[in-house]
Amino acid sequence: MALIVQKYGGTSVGSPDRIKNVARKVAKFRAQGHQVVVVVSAMSGETNRLIALTKEVASNPTPRELDVVVSTGEQVTIGLLCMALEDIGVPAKSYTGGQVRILTDSLHTKARILDIDEAPVRKDLDEGKVVVVAGFQGVDEHGNITTLGRGGSDTTGVALAAALKADECQIYTDVDGVYTTDPRIVPEARKLDTITFEEMLEMASLGSKVLQIRSVEFAGKYKVKLRVLSSFEDREGEGTLITVEEDKNMEQPIISGIAFSRDEAKLTVVGAPDKPGIAYQILGPIADANIDVDMIIQNVGHDGTTDFSFTVARGDLDKAVKVLEGVKAHIGAREIETDKSMCKVSIVGVGMRSHPGVASQMFRTLAEEGINIQMISTSEIKISVAIEDKYLELAVRALHKAFGLDAAV
Amino acid sequence: MALIVQKYGGTSVGSPDRIKNVARKVAKFRAQGHQVVVVVSAMSGETNRLIALTKEVASNPTPRELDVVVSTGEQVTIGLLCMALEDIGVPAKSYTGGQVRILTDSLHTKARILDIDEAPVRKDLDEGKVVVVAGFQGVDEHGNITTLGRGGSDTTGVALAAALKADECQIYTDVDGVYTTDPRIVPEARKLDTITFEEMLEMASLGSKVLQIRSVEFAGKYKVKLRVLSSFEDREGEGTLITVEEDKNMEQPIISGIAFSRDEAKLTVVGAPDKPGIAYQILGPIADANIDVDMIIQNVGHDGTTDFSFTVARGDLDKAVKVLEGVKAHIGAREIETDKSMCKVSIVGVGMRSHPGVASQMFRTLAEEGINIQMISTSEIKISVAIEDKYLELAVRALHKAFGLDAAV
Repeated sequence: MALIVQKYGGTSVGSPDRIKNVARKVAKFRAQGHQVVVVVSAMSGETNRLIALTKEVASNPTPRELDVVVSTGEQVTIGLLCMALEDIGVPAKSYTGGQVRILTDSLHTKARILDIDEAPVRKDLDEGKVVVVAGFQGVDEHGNITTLGRGGSDTTGVALAAALKADECQIYTDVDGVYTTDPRIVPEARKLDTITFEEMLEMASLGSKVLQIRSVEFAGKYKVKLRVLSSFEDREGEGTLITVEEDKNMEQPIISGIAFSRDEAKLTVVGAPDKPGIAYQILGPIADANIDVDMIIQNVGHDGTTDFSFTVARGDLDKAVKVLEGVKAHIGAREIETDKSMCKVSIVGVGMRSHPGVASQMFRTLAEEGINIQMISTSEIKISVAIEDKYLELAVRALHKAFGLDAAV
Repeated sequence: MALIVQKYGGTSVGSPDRIKNVARKVAKFRAQGHQVVVVVSAMSGETNRLIALTKEVASNPTPRELDVVVSTGEQVTIGLLCMALEDIGVPAKSYTGGQVRILTDSLHTKARILDIDEAPVRKDLDEGKVVVVAGFQGVDEHGNITTLGRGGSDTTGVALAAALKADECQIYTDVDGVYTTDPRIVPEARKLDTITFEEMLEMASLGSKVLQIRSVEFAGKYKVKLRVLSSFEDREGEGTLITVEEDKNMEQPIISGIAFSRDEAKLTVVGAPDKPGIAYQILGPIADANIDVDMIIQNVGHDGTTDFSFTVARGDLDKAVKVLEGVKAHIGAREIETDKSMCKVSIVGVGMRSHPGVASQMFRTLAEEGINIQMISTSEIKISVAIEDKYLELAVRALHKAFGLDAAV
């Protein structure tokens, strides 16, 4: 008998029929002798409907009251799932975030979990009940309703698993696991049986939407065994287990996955004076404007000037250009160039720590396809390159094959 | 400066625009220097939408979980109204039933209020905030969410007014007060400036939908000054004040109002043996089947048999007939007659206590219009008659005029 925390997202509980489907799934686990805690999101579309309502009554909705309104989405789902469970003979009890209680700080709309009182949940489990908890929400020390921000239900699931010392936290989604890369781009992409937390973090921060990044950090910190799998019956399986330890299997590939992002734009300050402090003079005002900078290149200068390039999210480009126009006059640069047709492709794998040739293999592969690398950034377990947008699919497919990730047919 | 509790029903908060309208109304009261506590219902249609959802996931929704789901309706409204208030510069704070806290028993879907902790509300009021409380809901001693049953928001308003010792509890509806009778039937119907609790109770139990009967009982018990008035700007006014004391004004009419109900049906057990215990033998099984009986007549018997008639709500007729078929065989009656074309007309007024001629005036008025009275029932401040359906409008208009209720033109 194991204690399992299962989290079902908005799509998985998106209609009465799907809720009944989740109830049957949960009942099956319980029939196998497991204790089950279920965390649910709002039915898909519900959170957006509620937010739209708030925008109709107030130009600038108060965060505290926004949380009061938005948290009802998950509250509806816990009630519905419990009655669906009881309707098929499974005793169940629902908890809002405040009832559990999931204590958070008071940062409305993006609160952080401080503590969970798992005693009542454990009591219900011991009485044979399935416990259903509203994801995404908590309560601060004054009894105010808080929410954890988008995707916060994953974090609720992991935090509950940590508090209950659950044997496993299962995150049910509309995909059946974590893939070596997006199967829509590379049909040969393989589902990974395991991936390390570090790799998953890099994949998540690079645009893989499977798991919310905060929940992965949380699971890593508290050593929660985390598994991503599909809630749809035709895709049932073992999913992908996210592990703390690197797989010791010798046959493990060096690279676990290829992530990419189309959402990139490059700015270049041309003819900036080549002297100390120029990076700060350019990037300081950008940071002050709350724009995240990703990759940075400062060219080797000549004639006392240099070109300074960096990338930002495409949505921030116009704002960044405005900031740089001011900077240009101030530092006496020649002009600002922009390039919207950028994308980023990254290879991720803990194996590259012990395999120094990975970067050169990546660059050779791209060169063989005639793809020009414009910028490079690296971490211990990741190498990212910025390339022209139109080469994205080609680059991902070539790298997927070159690093031996293609599925054996 | 007064402390006012205002309750706005589902129609008054039925859309974002109407919520903004309520916010402006509340702001106006506050600007006059009053402390305001607002109780709101779910937006009209929302409770039915939620109940429909529960019926899609479970054939027999658990009452506890039904309350979890349905209580979100009011929670959405309190958040929306608070942000609408803050958007026009009025500091506001919302409370769910559990947050106030409104302690109830554990009878889910029809809980009764046991206690209210008014301290946090008073603190917010003293800080200059408008307090917005979710109607219809509470929390039991174990922290479970409960609801008070349909129309429970009126009761929440009155209970809060009692706990806070408010100067007045204002119930905003889509009518501008309590009328002498339904203006759709009698165009000359007048809005009453005052009505006693006893009269209001009779009016409510006789089908006047203005106030939920439990809230009137509650207000009478705790001596809460209750006022019914319109939430719509084009019908603003003083509404109707519901008073504990009978108006000492000598000019007060004997009759305050005329209530009626179309929803009546008559059953007659023909040729029942005329002996002691026959009423119990007939009405006992009816009560066991949870059917409410209203008026009862046992004819003077002859030849050892009698006819026994009573009225029930029209929706209960078929069920009642089935019960009586069994009774008929058992007691040896001749047959069961039914009459669906019945209605009930009642005159209500505390003045009739001291005016013994009221009943005969009522009967004479109906006789003059050629209306045959089939059954009669009376209380200290009410006389009801059952008559043929088709005479309803005629009877109400004639009585309205005869008792001097027509508006002076």
